[in-house]
Parts: sequence; structure tokens; C-alpha cells
Amino acid sequence: MPPHTPLLDRVTYPADLRNFSAEQLAQVAEELRAEVVDTVSVTGGHLGSALGVIELTVAIHAVFDTPNDRLIWDVGHQAYPHKTLTGRRDRIRTLRQPGGLSGFTRRSESEYDPFGAAHSSTSISAGLGMAVARDLKGDDPDKQIICVIGDGSMSAGMAYEAMNNAGSMKSRLIVILNDNDMSIAPPVGAMSAYLSRLISSRSFLNLRDLAAKMAKRFPRSIERTAKRAEEYARGILTGGTLFEELGFYYVGPIDGHNMDHLLPVLRNLRDHEEGGPVLLHVVTQKGKGYAPAEQSPDKYHGVTRFNVVTGEQGKAPPGPPSYTKVFAKALIAEAEADPRIVAVTAAMPTGTGLDSFGKRFPDRTFDVGIAEQHAVTFAAGMATEGIKPFVAIYSTFLQRGYDQVVHDVAIQSLPVRFAMDRAGMVGADGHTHAGVYDLCFMGCLPGMVVMAPSDELELMDVVATAAAIDDRPSAFRYPRGDGFGLDLPARGKVLELGRGRVMREGSKIAVLALGPRLYEAMKAADELAARGFSTTVADARFMKPLDTDLITQLARNHEVVITIEDNVSGGFGSAVLHYMAVSGLLDRGVKVRPMVIPDRLIDHNTPAAQSIEAGLTAKDIVATALTALGVADASGSTSSGSAVRA
Amino acid sequence: MPPHTPLLDRVTYPADLRNFSAEQLAQVAEELRAEVVDTVSVTGGHLGSALGVIELTVAIHAVFDTPNDRLIWDVGHQAYPHKTLTGRRDRIRTLRQPGGLSGFTRRSESEYDPFGAAHSSTSISAGLGMAVARDLKGDDPDKQIICVIGDGSMSAGMAYEAMNNAGSMKSRLIVILNDNDMSIAPPVGAMSAYLSRLISSRSFLNLRDLAAKMAKRFPRSIERTAKRAEEYARGILTGGTLFEELGFYYVGPIDGHNMDHLLPVLRNLRDHEEGGPVLLHVVTQKGKGYAPAEQSPDKYHGVTRFNVVTGEQGKAPPGPPSYTKVFAKALIAEAEADPRIVAVTAAMPTGTGLDSFGKRFPDRTFDVGIAEQHAVTFAAGMATEGIKPFVAIYSTFLQRGYDQVVHDVAIQSLPVRFAMDRAGMVGADGHTHAGVYDLCFMGCLPGMVVMAPSDELELMDVVATAAAIDDRPSAFRYPRGDGFGLDLPARGKVLELGRGRVMREGSKIAVLALGPRLYEAMKAADELAARGFSTTVADARFMKPLDTDLITQLARNHEVVITIEDNVSGGFGSAVLHYMAVSGLLDRGVKVRPMVIPDRLIDHNTPAAQSIEAGLTAKDIVATALTALGVADASGSTSSGSAVRA
Repeated sequence: MPPHTPLLDRVTYPADLRNFSAEQLAQVAEELRAEVVDTVSVTGGHLGSALGVIELTVAIHAVFDTPNDRLIWDVGHQAYPHKTLTGRRDRIRTLRQPGGLSGFTRRSESEYDPFGAAHSSTSISAGLGMAVARDLKGDDPDKQIICVIGDGSMSAGMAYEAMNNAGSMKSRLIVILNDNDMSIAPPVGAMSAYLSRLISSRSFLNLRDLAAKMAKRFPRSIERTAKRAEEYARGILTGGTLFEELGFYYVGPIDGHNMDHLLPVLRNLRDHEEGGPVLLHVVTQKGKGYAPAEQSPDKYHGVTRFNVVTGEQGKAPPGPPSYTKVFAKALIAEAEADPRIVAVTAAMPTGTGLDSFGKRFPDRTFDVGIAEQHAVTFAAGMATEGIKPFVAIYSTFLQRGYDQVVHDVAIQSLPVRFAMDRAGMVGADGHTHAGVYDLCFMGCLPGMVVMAPSDELELMDVVATAAAIDDRPSAFRYPRGDGFGLDLPARGKVLELGRGRVMREGSKIAVLALGPRLYEAMKAADELAARGFSTTVADARFMKPLDTDLITQLARNHEVVITIEDNVSGGFGSAVLHYMAVSGLLDRGVKVRPMVIPDRLIDHNTPAAQSIEAGLTAKDIVATALTALGVADASGSTSSGSAVRA
Repeated sequence: MPPHTPLLDRVTYPADLRNFSAEQLAQVAEELRAEVVDTVSVTGGHLGSALGVIELTVAIHAVFDTPNDRLIWDVGHQAYPHKTLTGRRDRIRTLRQPGGLSGFTRRSESEYDPFGAAHSSTSISAGLGMAVARDLKGDDPDKQIICVIGDGSMSAGMAYEAMNNAGSMKSRLIVILNDNDMSIAPPVGAMSAYLSRLISSRSFLNLRDLAAKMAKRFPRSIERTAKRAEEYARGILTGGTLFEELGFYYVGPIDGHNMDHLLPVLRNLRDHEEGGPVLLHVVTQKGKGYAPAEQSPDKYHGVTRFNVVTGEQGKAPPGPPSYTKVFAKALIAEAEADPRIVAVTAAMPTGTGLDSFGKRFPDRTFDVGIAEQHAVTFAAGMATEGIKPFVAIYSTFLQRGYDQVVHDVAIQSLPVRFAMDRAGMVGADGHTHAGVYDLCFMGCLPGMVVMAPSDELELMDVVATAAAIDDRPSAFRYPRGDGFGLDLPARGKVLELGRGRVMREGSKIAVLALGPRLYEAMKAADELAARGFSTTVADARFMKPLDTDLITQLARNHEVVITIEDNVSGGFGSAVLHYMAVSGLLDRGVKVRPMVIPDRLIDHNTPAAQSIEAGLTAKDIVATALTALGVADASGSTSSGSAVRA
């Protein structure tokens, strides 16, 4: 039972916080913490990050004039307490649920979310854009832009580009470094808090300004030396020299869980009148205040439902292993046989399964941080020396390394292997994490082998095939979630390049699938056959090189050819159509129906509901086939999967 | 007349340099400089950068055991002296010429080019990959990896990601910062050279090592403070603190044109035995030693043929303005009418035409440095506040900001306008700069408007249209080179979204072009009509949204429909085919022939030769149409433009 009257119930919007005392705000934070634990115990989600920023969230909203002041949460997965305080408390238990709040910040959800996120390291760029817009429009110069970014996100080049640019401009911008790694933080104590308050205060800034003006009377080199000496003297005390070098005024570190440290420093930053960007270094603890999460920050970074008292997380019923796990198993098997195989991840060892690879081969596993660009070219460099790198990056994050895939890997035809996990729609994480473009952006590159296994057994073979491809780059994509529970061999076998397989033979309709939609195609074929339409089903296995013999045979011997894939238009189906067109296979009038993910964003939902919304189920295949044949579809299903792109 | 016997003639490979004295090496450098000026006066190319690294090139090859030691030139455009010294002197005048040497480093050209480049900031990632590969393979630990990277390239996030990762690893790696901007360099003098020699020497490193070992006996915080104090003390003298913060051992700055400064420091770095990455800061002057280039480094960064004595560059015969110039003119006209319009470039103000925009609107022009990721999201941030940003980035460099286009712009449906210059093949710069994938990677994004003007008049309209699109993102692509010399209005007019135009009406063959291939289509139609085949030609204008009415009409009323674009398969033609397939237009058997850039790299050449190689000329269109109709093509031309993708 809380020691005071509950306060959180009096807070619907941040303005309700602004007359509270520091002590009251600390109480709000405690109540908010309990509520967040309670919420996430039901919804699942990013618990540790949210708990780490409870006090910071309360303090920022109490000190700054949100939403007029713009608050940008980097990545956005730590924004549950922010959502609770910004008019969304009544819906907070719909987080990540179908039709409910997004697990990330989102512009369409609230004016308190001025910039949506989900990928990391975008906040400083966006914030600088807003700051410059404010200055261009002649808005109130006291309108503040506040970006909160974690230390992990700082490893991405994008954050550096933004800091570098902000540091060279005069626009006012506050970047709060939420440092919960401690790797770049010296101990935080009273002395540091005192110093930070001093440094962030107006009087100190004015003194500094005066000093700068004095220095300008001296020759440039002396001015620089004087400035540098001051910065470095502070850097020795505080550790902020990197940021000073990039042109930021550095304040910190301070304890991000102590209102008495946070509030005065934030007020000083709000009220100071000097232009230019400021970095406030705040040290926090992931999972703060919830013992199970404090003790195992990794286990509580992202959670399923859990028991609040014991901290025990709900276990999924025992089922088949995930594609991620099968990938790791397959890669370990290949690496046992070939000492040249190494694995590269960009800060996702667990998500990609490379944690288990790393346990087996610690010296052959490279986690480069949130740095996809570097990850790709680092692998390319290894490939030039005869090492065989597998770069495991979620499909959606590989977008970050795209130029490197083109310029450093594909153009040089280096045998780097891309394991693109989370291809297709991804359930609760929603459209920001959807891997539905990779067949377009990878399939268009000369010389790239592009594969998509239809099940986990095929994934093992695809990994073995990629390991064997030594004269050019290759990429393979596989979905989030579990396989079909097939028996797995100790090691995959090498597939013939550009060769699909026929799963069942028919004569009227052909369905050519790339990836696990193959099983929807098989179900559809059963139903179509039951209705008297003889149906062929084939597994393309490869988008590139295409199995042109298979396509030719399907086009020549069937009235309807359906392609299906977990990707938008421009990928596999388009490649099939292009081949059919240039080779004249279309001239006779075969009814081709490419089924793809429609050309709009599909919101977070259950995977099954997303499939239905995308129109990529067995039922949709049946409907597409029947419509193409001009047969009335008794089921009434629409063929939205073949929706028009334009 | 040189004061000594010529020495350069005695150098075919770098090994020939290794018995020369410092004085002789300085002489080689002088002769090499004259030869490079002479060469580029004939071939054109990147003169200033090459002249800035003459001494550095000679010194590196004299001190290190290339090609066993790996030397990686960032961007690679400064590598002409390197090529001259590494067995390619006899072909050096074929630089950038058809069939000749590439203007960049290239693996297939020489074992002295261990990593090809052309885009910036890749060298440290590649070098770290090679260093790690050396260590994994148990190669000679003295095998050195040397990356030479310019200060401009250091602004890219990728370089930071690589430094950050290298700094956390033990692998030996030498990064040479070639600083010709002086913006981060204090004055370079004898004292700094002395200090650098000292710092780079083995004895100093061993002392430092000893100090580090001593420090380990103390508690961690004291060790850190001691180390930091040492680093900062050096930082005050040298300016290298940023690199020290990232984990590099910093040496410099030294004069990159002085052999007596370069050689001892490079030897020390080669011979020292401590692991980990080292950064050597070398200060050079662009255009060094050639007076016209020293005086106007901008004008001599990239040159056409020029007169060695006067420095006068060959002028192209007066002709129509380039697409780049027309874009700038159009954007200025829009910005005159709408104060919310701003322009963003990533270190390419001249190349994108934004230099002239910047002269007119200095406060509304943002050059963010080589930082495409940041450029895109910075613009997205501005767009959230009602500013109307145009982001002008070459098609090939937009690959660097792809995730930001997807995640920050498209998913949030923010009205950022992408001006994609250099779309299609680009002549002498070759395949690393080709903008032939953008219709795939941009066309697949929900809500994105994708346009391609067919001439400079249309470009003006497309710019006006993009300015008017305020509810979603838009992108437009246009080629390198000159327009057709059409009369231009003061300002473009707004086009109807998703509406193409019919240029001439026929009945048998239809050619639907996206972009300037429209004029090839018009020529082809003349020839086809002359041979009795009534031909329709249409300008699609939009890839997205597609003009489905136009496509329907073309498909219904013609026996053959040809699409043509300056992009590989997966772009416009694929979108047309997809629409035709799902809407049933293909069912009756129309002969569709998508003509695209073939699925292989097309080497540097004249634009005309590249068009022929790609099979995208009027002649190819005629051949494709006749072949589709089953009519023998008397010209004997092959329709390689419709080559099979797989």
C-alpha cells in the first residue's frame, strides 16, 4: 500500500504534473512503475527499457511544455510510461494487441508522439530537423526539442552523422543520452550531480560565454587551445569529450532515477539562453525497481506475459523450434565442417540465434553493435581474404546496410551470405519491422543468389547451399516464428542453384510458391482438387537464379499460374512475370496471378490475422484460382492478395 | 628539366621503390606528380585528390610490403598515382576511357587493389575485415592492413561505426586520415612531426605499455583516470581526442608532403609490436604542386581535359543545360513562390545543382556532409513541422539512406521529396555510380509517388508536382547529362498524379516509356511506321501511382506492348506486368516485352555505348517489336534489352 494518497490517478496529461513538487513527482514515478510492470505482465513487451526511464519520463513531462515542446524517444520501445502519461492510460493494456496501441511511438496515435520510431538512432536527425524548422519558421525560440537516445543507439553511424551535423549548427537542441550500459559512464555520485547542475546553469553558461568572447580577442590558435583545454579539463572529470569534439555542450553524468538530480538540471537546460546543441548524460538502470528485471536485464528486455510477484514469464507451449533456432543449428553444423565460416551480427545475437553459435565458436562470432553498414562491409573485407562470412540481420534492418550490399558485396561479387531473419510480416512488432521489401531490393542486384526456404528442413539445406556458394554473394530469407516441426538432419544438403521442386502434379492450375506460403498452396490444392480442378504445386526455392525450366513447364501446361510470396510487388512474382514476358510465354494467354503483400502498411496483429488481411491464405489462393477460371467462388472470399499495386 | 636522372622509369612495381633513399623517393614523387598532371590533362578525372596523395602513395609503397600488406584507398578516386606505381603505368592514359582502367580502385584490375571502392567511407570496415581474417587464419601477424581515408569521408556514419568497432578489438590496423580540409587540423610543424615520430616509435609504445601494466595494479577508476589524463594531455597538443575516445592510438598530425616526416613515422607504425588500431593523421593539400589546382581546389577536384601549361580546362561545346541545372532552376522557381521549400544535400552541392539554390536561398539550403542517412531523417523531421524539404541525392548514394526512406519517411507518410539525380547508367564513373536500382527499391514502398520525367521540360513539371504533393512522400529520377535543348518556362506546372500522356497514336504496337527513353521510342515508332506497323508511343511519367487507364487501353488495343526504362527488372516494367496480370489484361495473350537494363554490371563507357550494350536504343525497340510480331528483323539487331533476367 503506497504511503501517500495515489497521485497517478490525477494525471491524464503531462500538464497535470507541472504543479507537483519533486517529492510528489517521485511518488508519481513509483506508481507509474507499478502500473507499467502490471501492464506489461499482461501485454508483454519491452519491460526493462520502460522501467529504466520512469523517472526521466516524469521529469521531462513535468519540466518541459509537451506537446508544444517536442519529445522524441529513440527506438520508441521504452515509451510505455510516456504513453501512460499522455492521454493513453485508458488504452495502455491494448499495447501491441490487435487494434490496440503500438509498441512504439507513432505520430498517428498522439500529438505527444511527434516522430514515430522502431528502428534505432533516428531521433537526433529528426530532432535537428524540427529545431531547424522552428528557427526557419520564426517560431518561439524557447520551443524545445528533446531527443532521448540510449547508449546502444549511439553506436549507429546515423547518430554520429546527426551529432556531427547538429554540432556544426546553431540550433537549440537537447539530446539526453540514456546510458544504461555504464560502459561509457564513470561512477555517478553527488559530486557529479553538483557539477552537472553548475554546468547546466545559466550563470555558468554566461561565464563561459564571456570567456569565449575574451578568447576571441586572441589569435585563433590560442583561442582554440584555451577552449580545448577547458573542454578537456571537464572531459577528465565527466567523460563527455567525444560529444564536445562533435560540437555539443556536454552536461553530466547524472543519476536518472533521482528526481532531485534530474529536475534542476532539466530546468537549467530548458531556461538557458545560449544556442547550439546540448547533451545531457543520464545514467539509468534497465529494469530499475522491479527485482526480477534488475537481476536479469537480458531476460526482461522483451518479455511475454509474466507473473508480477514471481517474475516468472509465461512459456509458449512446447512446439517446433523457431526458424531462428534452426538457422543457428544449421550454421553451427556448417561451421563444424568448415573452419572458414564465421558469423556477424549487428547487436542482435539472441534475435538472430547467433548467441548459440557464439557459445560454440566465440572467436568466429562478431557482434559489431548497431552498425549494419559496417557489418556488411566488414564481412566483405573478410570475404576478400577467404573467410566465409554469414551476416545475420533482420530483413528490415538490412535496409540500413543496403548501399554496402550493393557497392561492397554485389558489385565486387564477394561471397558474403546474408541470413535475412524476420522476412514477411512479423506480428506484434508491426509494419516498422516488416521484412516485406527484401525480395525487391536484393533481387534486383546482379549476381546475387536469392533463396527462400519453405520450411525449416529447407532452411537447413539453404544454409548448406549458401556455405557452398563461393563465387558470388547469396541471401536467404525466413520468417519470424516456428517451423512445422519437421525432423531435422544433423546437417543440410547443398541444393542445385536455380532449381525448384514440384510438390504435386496437376494440369489446370499451378501454384508456384516462394517460402512457407508453399503450405498454404498445398492446402489450396487439396480444396481445388476436391472441387475438380487438378492443381500443380511447386516450390521455387530460388528467386534468383530463377528456375526457368520449371516456369516454362508451368506456363505451358496450365490455364492458371499463381505465384505467391511474403513480399510486396516487385519481388518474386515480378521476376516470374518478367521472364514469362520476355520469353514469350505470356503470348498465348496464360492467366498469371501474382499474389503478394498488398501495397499498404499492415498494422501489428497476430500473424494469422495479418495473413488474412494480406490475402495470402489457402482460401485466398482458392478464390484467386477460381476467379481466374471464371468460376463463382462459393466461399465468398475475395482475392485481395492479388490486389492491384497502383 | 629535372635536376637528377629520371627515377620513375625504374619503377614498375612498388618493390622497385624499396631501396631508394628518402631523397630519391622525394624525386620519384615529383616525377609522379608531373606524370599524373600530364595523364589527367588527357583523360580527365579526379586531379586534386590525386595530387594531394603523391608523397603519401610513394611513402606507403616504399615502407610497406604491398600487395602482401593490404592498402585500401577510401573512395578510390585518388588512386591514379597508386595505379601508376603498381604495374599499370603503361595503361594509365586509358583511365576512365572505354575498355580502359577504372577511375577507382578495382579488385579485378590488380592484386594491389585488395578492395574496390567508389562510394566513400568503406575502407575502415573492409580493412578491419581483412585484419580479423589475418588473425583468424593465423597469417603472419606482421601483415599490415592500411586504410587511407579523407577527412570528408570521416563524416559518414559508416566510418564511425567501423572505428568504434575497430577500437573495441585487438586487431592491428593502420588508418591514415588524409586531412586536406584543415578543419580538424591544428598547424603542422616541426614540433608536431617530432612528437609524432616519438609517439609512433616502439620505445614510446613500450613505455606506454609498461605504464598501462602498472596502472592495472590500481583500482579501475584510477586506471581510467590516469589513462584519460594521458590521452587528453596528448589531445590538447594534437587534436586527436575523438579518435582516442573511439579506441584508436592516435599519431599526428604530420605533413603529408614531406618524405622526412612521412617515412620515419610509417616505419615506426609498421615495426611496432603492440596490437590494436592506430590512426595516423596526415595533413595534405588538394592539388599540391600544380599551381592552378592549388589555387582553385574546387575547380580541379574533377576535371575534363585541360592544358597543362595554362591549366585551362576544355569546355564542352555550348549545348542544352544539364538535367541537374534544370532541376535547380525549377526548384528555385518553386522556392520563390513557397517560402516553406528547403533543399538538403549530402556533400554534393555542385553535383546536385544546389549550389545555385544555395546562392539564392542560403538559409534554406542544408549541406549535411557525407551523411545520407541523416539527410533523409533530418528532412523527415522538418516535414513534420510543415517545412517542405527536397532531398537531392544521386540515385546511387540514396542507397545509403534507404532504411531512413522506408522507416522515417514512407511508413510515416511524410511529404519529403527525393530528387534522384544520375539515374540510369552514368558514363565514365561506371557501375559503382549507376543509378539503376532505384525504381526497385523506391517503387516497392507503400504510398511513395515515383516519377521520371522524359525530358527537361517534364522535369520542371515534375519538380512543381513534387512541391505540390503535401500528403505523402515523392521521388523523381533524372539522368546524368544534358537535356534536349527544349524551351523552358519560368516555372513548371503541376501534373495530375498517376496520369501519363500519349505521344502518338497507333494500333499494332505500343511503346510505354518511363523517362528519357521516350525519345528512343519515338524514333523507333517512326521506323516501325515506315515499315507499316502502326505504333503508339506513351510517356508513363509515373511509375507510382500507375496510369492504369492508359495501361488498360494499350493492352486492349495493341498486339505488342513494350515497356522501356533505365532500370533493371523489378521496376517500372514489372509494375506494369503486375497490374496487367492481376487485372486479367494478360489473359487474352497480349505480347508484352519489358525492356530493362540487363542483369549484369555495365562497365564505364560513353553513355551512347552503354545504351547500346544495355540494348535500350531505338534500334533495339524496333527489333524487339518485330521479333514479338514474328517478323524477321532485317537489321540483324538483337533484342538484348529484353534479355532474360534469371
